[in-house]
Amino acid sequence: MVEKLSDGQRETALRGLDGWVYDATSGAIARAFKFKDFSEAFAFMTRVALAAEKAGHHPDWSNTYNSVTISLSTHDAGGLSARDIALAQAIDKLLA
Amino acid sequence: MVEKLSDGQRETALRGLDGWVYDATSGAIARAFKFKDFSEAFAFMTRVALAAEKAGHHPDWSNTYNSVTISLSTHDAGGLSARDIALAQAIDKLLA
Repeated sequence: MVEKLSDGQRETALRGLDGWVYDATSGAIARAFKFKDFSEAFAFMTRVALAAEKAGHHPDWSNTYNSVTISLSTHDAGGLSARDIALAQAIDKLLA
Repeated sequence: MVEKLSDGQRETALRGLDGWVYDATSGAIARAFKFKDFSEAFAFMTRVALAAEKAGHHPDWSNTYNSVTISLSTHDAGGLSARDIALAQAIDKLLA
């Protein structure tokens, strides 16, 4: 059972991420990404899918043409957990 | 410039599709899909992405684990066009 981060843990973790915003209502962090076109957006999504499957932790996400929005939370923890931070870090790394 | 379907054209076209629902507010058709797990859901999304890129017409879509929701409309036509019907047919065919 993975534990929900405390407010302090969450704030510290968010400072280490690039552009992820916490939404208190959903208990999730989200980030929007823009690419040149659909092909580039979906190539990114494929890499995120592989990272998610490897982590055994999956995003809620949507795509419209060159835009991708990714939301991360941990249902079992009732909010944000270390698994979300780890996946967000892996996603940020894809774009570094 | 691709033309918006008339009400009659839309209704006829929808009868030939499998499970797509028209939303008058958004002017889009949508269908929800369920798979065994994320891997199967994303494999389907990859095939849809290829079909969309081939058609030069792209979906608004979202995924949460084994669920995929696809919405189709044609911005340039201000609603539903023959391009949406053709892409919906191609997607249905992937699952036939």
